[in-house]
Amino acid sequence: MKGEVIKKLNELAEDVIRKAERGENPYILIPIRGITNVIYDEKNRRIILGDKVSKRYFLNVAHAKKFMQTFLVAAFCHQLLKEGIHASLRETFYSLKRTLPGSKENTFDTQDESDPIIVDLEVTLDLLREQLHLNADARGRLVGDVIIKDRGDTIDCSKLGSGGWFIPSNVEDIEFKNINAEFVLVVEKVGAFERLHEDKFWQKHKCILISTVGQPARGCRRLIQRLAYEFGLPIYVFVDADSYGFYIYSVIKYGSMSLAHISDRLGTHTAKFIGLTISDIDKYGLQNFTIKANELDIKRAQELLKYKWFQSPEWQKEIKLMIERKVKAELEALASKGLRYVSDVYLPTKIKNKEFLD
Amino acid sequence: MKGEVIKKLNELAEDVIRKAERGENPYILIPIRGITNVIYDEKNRRIILGDKVSKRYFLNVAHAKKFMQTFLVAAFCHQLLKEGIHASLRETFYSLKRTLPGSKENTFDTQDESDPIIVDLEVTLDLLREQLHLNADARGRLVGDVIIKDRGDTIDCSKLGSGGWFIPSNVEDIEFKNINAEFVLVVEKVGAFERLHEDKFWQKHKCILISTVGQPARGCRRLIQRLAYEFGLPIYVFVDADSYGFYIYSVIKYGSMSLAHISDRLGTHTAKFIGLTISDIDKYGLQNFTIKANELDIKRAQELLKYKWFQSPEWQKEIKLMIERKVKAELEALASKGLRYVSDVYLPTKIKNKEFLD
Repeated sequence: MKGEVIKKLNELAEDVIRKAERGENPYILIPIRGITNVIYDEKNRRIILGDKVSKRYFLNVAHAKKFMQTFLVAAFCHQLLKEGIHASLRETFYSLKRTLPGSKENTFDTQDESDPIIVDLEVTLDLLREQLHLNADARGRLVGDVIIKDRGDTIDCSKLGSGGWFIPSNVEDIEFKNINAEFVLVVEKVGAFERLHEDKFWQKHKCILISTVGQPARGCRRLIQRLAYEFGLPIYVFVDADSYGFYIYSVIKYGSMSLAHISDRLGTHTAKFIGLTISDIDKYGLQNFTIKANELDIKRAQELLKYKWFQSPEWQKEIKLMIERKVKAELEALASKGLRYVSDVYLPTKIKNKEFLD
Repeated sequence: MKGEVIKKLNELAEDVIRKAERGENPYILIPIRGITNVIYDEKNRRIILGDKVSKRYFLNVAHAKKFMQTFLVAAFCHQLLKEGIHASLRETFYSLKRTLPGSKENTFDTQDESDPIIVDLEVTLDLLREQLHLNADARGRLVGDVIIKDRGDTIDCSKLGSGGWFIPSNVEDIEFKNINAEFVLVVEKVGAFERLHEDKFWQKHKCILISTVGQPARGCRRLIQRLAYEFGLPIYVFVDADSYGFYIYSVIKYGSMSLAHISDRLGTHTAKFIGLTISDIDKYGLQNFTIKANELDIKRAQELLKYKWFQSPEWQKEIKLMIERKVKAELEALASKGLRYVSDVYLPTKIKNKEFLD
């Protein structure tokens, strides 16, 4: 894999040299990432980029600086790959920032300049930044009867006490061994993770338990996808019944608009929504445990209603219900039935009856 | 320990019953937590509560509801301890919310009502909420040559791949075995953690590496304290050179004003600040890699300047330097000297020369 990545970087450079030698104005082709080029691929169920591309020229006053920046980042990644080390986006910026000799011009002035160049490179080369050895922020927590091999260590994720494994930013090189699980349960909240972990939910129901710890980080999304695609494990997402929870589910499943160019590597189209639904409020008698949805919640729900990936009758019903009733519910509302209700009744019933939203 | 906690809860209730039987108006004594009762204990180097207390009466229209709420939470904790399970603050709220029979009055209307009652109980009983089996949010990441026993598992934290151990919300019951480390390095940022971990810093320098992953959570602070106080390990804190970084250091060392009642159990007065300092900008030639401090940064710095625990000449110099120059620096600025400079030169030099701020 590493060899292929280096090859792609070399080809990018060689193409420019070739054009220069021929006396042409060197350019690179960069797929456009703006909202106008984001489409929903219904067949594969993911948010992807369309085929609009832009050309970034070397000999063009408006392009020259970005052209240089693109190759500075590419050369930096080449070096990282050769040395076998990784860098964060911030380290990349500080590593590359300098004043150009004989001028007052900096290569990069702020990280706001280098971050988009990294995405440009990702989309141009059709590679994940993680494959270029650039790491994003890490967040996420995992327990379950699975053995992971990583950097020479063999990690038994069923024996990590109350803590669990901290999911690193880059999961490209980890290997899964001996997976003894029938599905993966992904919860957003750390509190819910601790409830299910203490109740030994993953042992009783043979699953891998993951918390995204808020908005799912890239490493966590990639890990979920690998478990689904490489091992055929069903993925169930458990979040609050509100527009924010629904959105987190959609990011895990379809990818996001801002990272549409890599939905095929970060999205998991087989993921299913296990709860909490707005309908659950009536079904499980949670009427006294809801929260009034505020204006922003409703505005977000109205946006979700229009997304092409939320057009199934089931989802339309749920989102409309939220808007009509101006209501939302946290998954901890189930604690009103008893702390272990979520582990002993709610989730097992949903799984047994295959009550998922897709 | 658990027995003592249950005993304290029982005594709280028995005292009220005794007063009622004597025909007195039952009350509980609650130390005041407001800023007027927060003082700096210079001798023990921690932020603590003064001795002002308030009385919460049963037969007092203004107190009665809170009195009831206090005992609802106390009874809930009693139940948790008996059953040997834990609950999050949010689960506590949903578990206890209900409409009082024959009225339209709820026990609690929102979590904003139950959270402060939990702190009241913590301060009244002089116990950590974790000892009452109430868990806060979990955040934090650990690697190092240390073996932890937790919930029957034996976790070798030197063999957790690129990830590390996810520090749980509650570390009261974990046991440390075979600590093979000479100090603990605490970094705020996950990116810095991954740099040091990849560079095998903890192996080369025999330390335990912890990331607080932002503002340190209670479990993480408690874990740091246990490593310092139970095993005499020096604690070095590595954060950005700005008011936010300095504040994180001060919370780890002295505790915080909002949790002043438990600084003795969450603060680590022996912790030292290893960097980044504002002086380091000149010393390490980082002048081209600083960021302009904004108004809020300066305002926060001016507040820090007045705190009693920042009165040493060294700290006064650093904070004044930041204000005068209107400048701050991220620790990743060191990457401008090479990615591994922080692991190979900066930190080892500081440790060797004992260049710490205290």
